[in-house]
Amino acid sequence: MATGRNHRPATRSRGIPEATVARLPLYLRALTALSERSVPTVSSEELAAAAGVNSAKLRKDFSYLGSYGTRGVGYDVEYLVYQISRELGLTQDWPVVIVGIGNLGAALANYGGFASRGFRVAALIDADPAMAGKPVAGIAVQHTDELEKIISDNGVSIGVIATPAGAAQQVCDRLVAAGVTSILNFAPTVLSVPEGVDVRKVDLSIELQILAFHEQRKAGEESGGPGRKGPDGDMPAVMPA
Amino acid sequence: MATGRNHRPATRSRGIPEATVARLPLYLRALTALSERSVPTVSSEELAAAAGVNSAKLRKDFSYLGSYGTRGVGYDVEYLVYQISRELGLTQDWPVVIVGIGNLGAALANYGGFASRGFRVAALIDADPAMAGKPVAGIAVQHTDELEKIISDNGVSIGVIATPAGAAQQVCDRLVAAGVTSILNFAPTVLSVPEGVDVRKVDLSIELQILAFHEQRKAGEESGGPGRKGPDGDMPAVMPA
Repeated sequence: MATGRNHRPATRSRGIPEATVARLPLYLRALTALSERSVPTVSSEELAAAAGVNSAKLRKDFSYLGSYGTRGVGYDVEYLVYQISRELGLTQDWPVVIVGIGNLGAALANYGGFASRGFRVAALIDADPAMAGKPVAGIAVQHTDELEKIISDNGVSIGVIATPAGAAQQVCDRLVAAGVTSILNFAPTVLSVPEGVDVRKVDLSIELQILAFHEQRKAGEESGGPGRKGPDGDMPAVMPA
Repeated sequence: MATGRNHRPATRSRGIPEATVARLPLYLRALTALSERSVPTVSSEELAAAAGVNSAKLRKDFSYLGSYGTRGVGYDVEYLVYQISRELGLTQDWPVVIVGIGNLGAALANYGGFASRGFRVAALIDADPAMAGKPVAGIAVQHTDELEKIISDNGVSIGVIATPAGAAQQVCDRLVAAGVTSILNFAPTVLSVPEGVDVRKVDLSIELQILAFHEQRKAGEESGGPGRKGPDGDMPAVMPA
């Protein structure tokens, strides 16, 4: 993962805390927005605010990358984009398959944000024979019967599951048996995988939850007291331990 | 925002750091998974690992909620789900509108994870007259001409934009003018909003980026040296500041 061209020891990335890894995409998102506006440098405070992280933590995180910025100037936006991309493994090409080509699978296939991050949609797979051969986002959908061959032929290690909940575990098992070692799960179910396989479950409501927190606060400030209230029927009978 | 029924001062939540707010949905996701498996209690270490956060930070975060767990027992899963949901404002009903009913908008309309978090899809809006009246996820799509009336009639404060990039800013401006104060943006563009309006941009590739980091590491471990490499053409010419 490191070469002579990298300005850090080859083993450095193994020592990055998991929580830092989880924040790197947030920094990258904020930096990409700055890059799109042609902003050349950014202070740790500005970048921390844009990423929703405190600035001391950001500086600590970046120290794992060997990136310390320049006092009075800040961080070079383009170089930091490159450093984080490299650390995350995004400067290489990752073929991914998407299984389950309903609305969500089709939306993911059409999603421009994957390609710009080094993810190439190598194949679209669906269990419905009527879908086979149909083009979605310019790629002909293939039938689930072909799954193992597709994984093998394309050297795919990352699979995206966008099937209904009931089909997800079986699809997951087949992906893993075929050699996939990372699963991104959009299906609303918890998947079991063997040791050595990473699963991440996407919850599309997470950002909405953060917005709700701010809405609640705004409503509370406007009324100068209790904010908008819903029924209390959701409160569980269980009390604190 | 707080009532006499809440076991904390009304002003408490205003003092929660933004970074803690951003982690609350991650805890909630992990806790919900435990709750679905009927796990009654969880240690800070287990929950921190499930949420991808370090356990000292988790305990600090929970202290803002007034939740300290019980030594040797841990945290009560159901109560913590309730506490975090309340803090985020999810125990009330949030009507949301989704604008742009292509594949992504339709997928979001069908997404079960919103309803279970207190978000009710109040209306689906699309600019295509041919879509008007068509049912998606059991809701008849309405034309963009109706946008202001829909927002007003339903008391909507949260709007979800799933339009193409080119239409997003105009839709955003109309939502804000009609009274929406929080925008969840799935369109691949940066939106400008006036002071007091919150925008969050969803990047569906974030979880994939975290998987790529681990894949890169696994590949490096297997080969006992550099991992899978792609072309270095992505490296920017800019060097560190």
